[in-house]
Amino acid sequence: GKGAHHVLQRCPFFSSADGSSILKGLQPILEEQGMTQTIHDLGENGYLVMYINKTGSFATLRIYKDKLVTFDIQSSVVDGEGQRIQNLCNKLQDKMKDLLKGNIQKLKRLPAIVRGGVHDRYWPTEDERLIEYDIDDTVYEADSRYQNIKILHSKQFGNILLLNDDINLAESDLPYTQAIMGSGTENYTGKEVLILGGGDGGILQELVKLKPKMVTMSYIDQMVIDACRKYMRKACGDVLDHLKGDCYQVLVEDCIPVLKRYGEEGRLFDYVINDLTAIPISTSPEEESTWEFLRSILDLSVKVLKPTGKYFTQGNCVNMTEGLAMYEEQLNRLSCPVEFSKKVVCVPSYMELWVFYTVWKK
Amino acid sequence: GKGAHHVLQRCPFFSSADGSSILKGLQPILEEQGMTQTIHDLGENGYLVMYINKTGSFATLRIYKDKLVTFDIQSSVVDGEGQRIQNLCNKLQDKMKDLLKGNIQKLKRLPAIVRGGVHDRYWPTEDERLIEYDIDDTVYEADSRYQNIKILHSKQFGNILLLNDDINLAESDLPYTQAIMGSGTENYTGKEVLILGGGDGGILQELVKLKPKMVTMSYIDQMVIDACRKYMRKACGDVLDHLKGDCYQVLVEDCIPVLKRYGEEGRLFDYVINDLTAIPISTSPEEESTWEFLRSILDLSVKVLKPTGKYFTQGNCVNMTEGLAMYEEQLNRLSCPVEFSKKVVCVPSYMELWVFYTVWKK
Repeated sequence: GKGAHHVLQRCPFFSSADGSSILKGLQPILEEQGMTQTIHDLGENGYLVMYINKTGSFATLRIYKDKLVTFDIQSSVVDGEGQRIQNLCNKLQDKMKDLLKGNIQKLKRLPAIVRGGVHDRYWPTEDERLIEYDIDDTVYEADSRYQNIKILHSKQFGNILLLNDDINLAESDLPYTQAIMGSGTENYTGKEVLILGGGDGGILQELVKLKPKMVTMSYIDQMVIDACRKYMRKACGDVLDHLKGDCYQVLVEDCIPVLKRYGEEGRLFDYVINDLTAIPISTSPEEESTWEFLRSILDLSVKVLKPTGKYFTQGNCVNMTEGLAMYEEQLNRLSCPVEFSKKVVCVPSYMELWVFYTVWKK
Repeated sequence: GKGAHHVLQRCPFFSSADGSSILKGLQPILEEQGMTQTIHDLGENGYLVMYINKTGSFATLRIYKDKLVTFDIQSSVVDGEGQRIQNLCNKLQDKMKDLLKGNIQKLKRLPAIVRGGVHDRYWPTEDERLIEYDIDDTVYEADSRYQNIKILHSKQFGNILLLNDDINLAESDLPYTQAIMGSGTENYTGKEVLILGGGDGGILQELVKLKPKMVTMSYIDQMVIDACRKYMRKACGDVLDHLKGDCYQVLVEDCIPVLKRYGEEGRLFDYVINDLTAIPISTSPEEESTWEFLRSILDLSVKVLKPTGKYFTQGNCVNMTEGLAMYEEQLNRLSCPVEFSKKVVCVPSYMELWVFYTVWKK
């Protein structure tokens, strides 16, 4: 196997045992594994011990002076190796408990991190927390003119669409689609709807069920549409099989010229649903142009909205408070004054609570 | 700071560049940081290079022969250090791209793992995936006669109750309580209900709102009740302020003797809600006694159920297919024959989909 198997063990403790007695105690266990050690005495900074064996497995033991011990072992994934490492960690753990005689405040072993595996399982949240997904297959991967497209299979969530390594939608994520459609409070029957983005077809599929007059979807990337039609069918059903249906049309083009065209024509919609990429996280000045871009889409969208119309969009994860505040500031700076409400929703595959906005003309 | 800051960088690549040219290329960048290197030439197993500086920061670079490079750096958390490490990783990453001239298949940096921090942020799922929570406070921690009790604060989920390091319920987890009460399909008005477990008071609080005739809750650990009354108020409201109310009573005792007593008295309930610990994961023979214990609770519960009564319980995460199958096998082996249905629900703080069961007499 190509993957580097990585086991992390963390042992913060409070004890009168000194570093050298811990070293002596653990040494026989690591020697048993055929590992040779190199000790670095860092003086007031404690000890660092490096273990290597001939096959290229290695481990580091770091003893800090302020009562923290960390142990890491990295090894190639081969049959039985995972179990061998777990057994070794069990032995080290028992020995640590023994050496420190109940003076351990915490002793924690983290699940192994697998790197270089066939399927990438680590997809951090928007607020940059480490999350391991239950990915067991890479269903599709390609670069389009616009972005990197991946569809990965999760044991529990079904297929997941990632654009530029950002989780967009999983087949389990009907709550996302329901939230961005107004959480079941709206009556779409006979209505005119414009979707910006939404290339996975999830919103389109749910809308079409509700007998609207006409849904127009503007999405830029044909390759995403094709991949989702094939691999995201629990989200889009058969709605992407054709770009035109009884009550919908898909325009494979950038939504900005579409919005401008409709604006000039004076065409109005009951609902505009913006399913484009999440709002920016950053609040730094260099991102000013991103916010301006976002505001221009908002301005154009509000322009094609009937006086009684509603604009729905996703925001960001609930922890990105600065980004959300910046977005709300944009809402207060539109050409046409608007009011808004927001709702926090749990989207299964996101692993973080997500904010959705409803915007309407004052 | 006490925490060991740990940045992991993973760079699987395909390239004609050999290990030694990567080494030479990265060397100046690491020397700049005042790090001294020790090179281990592992022959057919590639290279391992160890970097150390005087403050005790260290890094490992492992170059595998099968086109995988891993880089890890560990450093104490001090002001500005995190940013310095990110800058270093940026430089190494750029250099790698440069050296391998577009022959990198993937280059991925994972968020830092913080060990020995004041608040523990790593709580794996039932299927042992690594999950970092947004924990920013340890609200309560104590050992009772029965278990370790922790209440941690999550930025997005509010307070979270952990028993023996297992996430039980967060203040965000009304979907859990709704699911274990039958997902809104039941009419509890005027009904007799028995709760087994449920020390966080979430179910009790929701039930009492629905005007039942009488709810009896049997929970063993007074310390959990006290902690939740104080710190889980978004889940339990004021229902745990008194152990007796107009339509409920809390018996602070093990549920087994309670069930036996009610069984002998011939007392019957419309609903039994089992909120005890999740069903076992293991299917190994040594766990047989756990399954027997579980079956005996099921038998006792069904015995106190009216012929039209319903028994609700949580199962396990949807990925623990073997454990779930074993549980369903127990349901088919009860003294009184039963039928069951199950439902998969997204509980916000769990980070994995959870299975809930409804059981009724045939």
